[in-house]
Amino acid sequence: MVADDLTYTWADFILRVSRLAGMLEGLGVRRGERFAILARNTVRHYELLHAGYWLGAIPVPVNVRLAPPEIRFILEDSGCKLLAVEPAFLDLLETDALEPWRKNALTIGDPRYEVLLAEASPPPLDDPREDDDAILLYTGGTTGRSKGVRLTHKNVISNGMQCVAAMEIRPDDVYLHVAPMFHSADLLGTGYTLRGAAHAFLPQFSPKALLAEIQRARVTVMMASPTVIIVTLQEPDFDKYDLSSFRRLFYGSAPMAVEWTRRAMERFPRAVLQQGYGLTETSPILTTLDADQHVAAVKNGNYDRLRSVGRPLMGLDLRLVDDDDNEVPRGSVGEIAVRGPNVTGGYLNRPQETAHAIRDGWFHTGDLARMDEDGFVYLVDRKKDMIITGGENVYCTEVEAAVYQHPAVHEAAVIGVPDERFGEALLAVIVPAAGQSLSADELVAHCRGRIGGYKIPRRIALMKEMPKSAMGKILKTELRKMFTAASPAVPVDVAADAPTRQKVDLK
Amino acid sequence: MVADDLTYTWADFILRVSRLAGMLEGLGVRRGERFAILARNTVRHYELLHAGYWLGAIPVPVNVRLAPPEIRFILEDSGCKLLAVEPAFLDLLETDALEPWRKNALTIGDPRYEVLLAEASPPPLDDPREDDDAILLYTGGTTGRSKGVRLTHKNVISNGMQCVAAMEIRPDDVYLHVAPMFHSADLLGTGYTLRGAAHAFLPQFSPKALLAEIQRARVTVMMASPTVIIVTLQEPDFDKYDLSSFRRLFYGSAPMAVEWTRRAMERFPRAVLQQGYGLTETSPILTTLDADQHVAAVKNGNYDRLRSVGRPLMGLDLRLVDDDDNEVPRGSVGEIAVRGPNVTGGYLNRPQETAHAIRDGWFHTGDLARMDEDGFVYLVDRKKDMIITGGENVYCTEVEAAVYQHPAVHEAAVIGVPDERFGEALLAVIVPAAGQSLSADELVAHCRGRIGGYKIPRRIALMKEMPKSAMGKILKTELRKMFTAASPAVPVDVAADAPTRQKVDLK
Repeated sequence: MVADDLTYTWADFILRVSRLAGMLEGLGVRRGERFAILARNTVRHYELLHAGYWLGAIPVPVNVRLAPPEIRFILEDSGCKLLAVEPAFLDLLETDALEPWRKNALTIGDPRYEVLLAEASPPPLDDPREDDDAILLYTGGTTGRSKGVRLTHKNVISNGMQCVAAMEIRPDDVYLHVAPMFHSADLLGTGYTLRGAAHAFLPQFSPKALLAEIQRARVTVMMASPTVIIVTLQEPDFDKYDLSSFRRLFYGSAPMAVEWTRRAMERFPRAVLQQGYGLTETSPILTTLDADQHVAAVKNGNYDRLRSVGRPLMGLDLRLVDDDDNEVPRGSVGEIAVRGPNVTGGYLNRPQETAHAIRDGWFHTGDLARMDEDGFVYLVDRKKDMIITGGENVYCTEVEAAVYQHPAVHEAAVIGVPDERFGEALLAVIVPAAGQSLSADELVAHCRGRIGGYKIPRRIALMKEMPKSAMGKILKTELRKMFTAASPAVPVDVAADAPTRQKVDLK
Repeated sequence: MVADDLTYTWADFILRVSRLAGMLEGLGVRRGERFAILARNTVRHYELLHAGYWLGAIPVPVNVRLAPPEIRFILEDSGCKLLAVEPAFLDLLETDALEPWRKNALTIGDPRYEVLLAEASPPPLDDPREDDDAILLYTGGTTGRSKGVRLTHKNVISNGMQCVAAMEIRPDDVYLHVAPMFHSADLLGTGYTLRGAAHAFLPQFSPKALLAEIQRARVTVMMASPTVIIVTLQEPDFDKYDLSSFRRLFYGSAPMAVEWTRRAMERFPRAVLQQGYGLTETSPILTTLDADQHVAAVKNGNYDRLRSVGRPLMGLDLRLVDDDDNEVPRGSVGEIAVRGPNVTGGYLNRPQETAHAIRDGWFHTGDLARMDEDGFVYLVDRKKDMIITGGENVYCTEVEAAVYQHPAVHEAAVIGVPDERFGEALLAVIVPAAGQSLSADELVAHCRGRIGGYKIPRRIALMKEMPKSAMGKILKTELRKMFTAASPAVPVDVAADAPTRQKVDLK
């Protein structure tokens, strides 16, 4: 662990984690029971996760940006016995929703915590079966009722081993936890633990903080969303930091425009780029577009390849299926279905949703994709995000790719809105580049020739900022709420200075 | 596949293997049934193994050096439906023991084979459960009644993934199959298949053939026994070959004298060295002593470390236990017990031996070892090879390490022989270096001060050649037969030109 305030060896980690396990036990958490963690990315957060593994208790890391009633729902749905809270989030316990949890709360790192830890003695190391739950992660926490994804020891370790191969993890790596540790993306760190590499932690993102931490901890690798990468690449002081240790930039959770991929390759000349696609339900990685494929794509001008999320990891099966679960022909769009040792057995307390997602041993991701002749997977859209307009299927990402090519577009999202004539019509929600604007006519003219006429959005809405998840994903569900439920008559032009209805910081 | 006579892509491999599966099915082999392969290391051998996997039939590769009755025992014990034979071994079918198998034999690569293959159509790819048998490998085939070790798909794939990490396998590797493909050591190739690397094959070992194949196929990595390595290093034409592609020398199955390790590092300056320890029952690798540990040991003069087989692979548990299955204190000798996804569920038709070996979920290897403070494992001896003399436990390998330091010793093995006074006495069986000899008195003088007095062999037997297994392991069971059963009065000095009673070529 090479945290800013706490640097020690794996042997020390074992000592601390084992005593922490004793402390959890002393606070009434038993084997097979759950406890929640509400904390940013810190070494103490990582210790708590492993204290759970040591004890055989199941950690439930909770999204720190949820509203108190949402947090309470998770605590109750999972039946947590304890809530470990970072001091920065103690005010949440003052809310009505979380007031009942004050008596079961543990403040991470405060004097009581340190005394309890010092007094605790290690319980025996738990000896789990491979199908015992290791961790419970909630998905969809920012929109709608969230589901707890049960990930077993086998799930987590298997994906760790798959990542060791795919990311060529070495014992001398230093992995920086940038993605929030309550998010499945953080499970990418498992491979680094398996190989005995070092861990560093970024509690709060800013471009300067990220670059300074790479320099300080001699970070070699991180996983970050395109938004984090793009903002960091634009940092004026970028060149002042010593990034010579950095050798692998893993990005995912959303596509990144080719221009930014190329720029990242230029600005991190010692580092290789790798893209990954996965889900909480798959612990998390399913496919990677590897370093040599990035180099070849740029060298050959084959930018289409950079839009691929790559090929499946070894040790798992991936296929694209139609609504009847038949595999679609190569090149056609189908839903991604997967099976493998890293794939969840289902959701907590949701037998129906589990049965719907896992059919005949295959987990159905809800993501639509195409596969090319070489087996590269191209995400097309969320199954439920596909728009049917005038009887035609339109995949939003394809439209967005065209929209993104307009120089005035900083960010774009295409959604379907109710339309009397076509059933659904396409609305392009756009954050313009600084100081620029864009009209619906200009956008239509731009798209003409790039994509088929029925795919061109005739309606446009300009916004200052997009609603986003903690991982930087644009929340289309929020956009749909804003532009359909609230106003059946969709505004054709929203002033660029219109207030954004939801503002979610990217971690 | 970059075989000498057949070079093609993985896509072609799939096509050939799938049709081969159809051919096996046409010859009456069904899913869940077994078929034997009697062949040297060739691409066709590798195709047949995978045709079994495709069909869901279980290949049984058979040691080509066994006597016909031993082969027949394996064919009957495993209930094979078919025997695929390389033309070079067809004469075995002329023996009385194997005559009944002539009607179920398939000659690999002959005109009938090629016609059948061309006419075959691929059956559906088998969809095994992870606990279905993948391959059946017989152990102990050169001495006594052999046991069929059942290895499941999970076993084989898990060790493949463990090796991908431990051996840092890359898609651009070229793996040369040097260890016999009927031996579990060949399962090391699994990781290379998982990563889509290339395979080359050495049907018949000689130093020149090995070096020529490295040069021809641009081999990057191989697994070889110390004997193969030592003989190759002594090849006078060594420097005439282009070995620039070669980057990893993996050795195992027996300890290698430090001098040879250093020499190997000098003669393969572009390659790293790695040692491994494992068993057929563990698919096969359990521990590795890695490249950086070799470099550090030589740099620091810490040659003791080079006698370690390293540390356990990730994803498995290894501990040293006493006869009551209690873990022994660090530094003490215990039997190696292991569990993990790569560990067999047991032997075919041997419920008693299975129950004896697998107790409380742990497989007992029968190997004795010590573990140092850093977790490095030092093999001490086979459990049954430990000698009790005058009430003291003596581990033969420790004695052998001392004996090997005498310059006149080329190869040495220490065994226990009956002794009226001490119960057992130590006998050093020695193959002297060319043109040299050694007396018991000289050996005693040499050992004095190196090891405790009760560990010094007072008896010595000189031989021209050691009985060895196909992997180059000295067969102590054979030595014991030679020096105890046959002659209770053990010869104190056997003339160096005495006939060896068993001569087994190293492949």
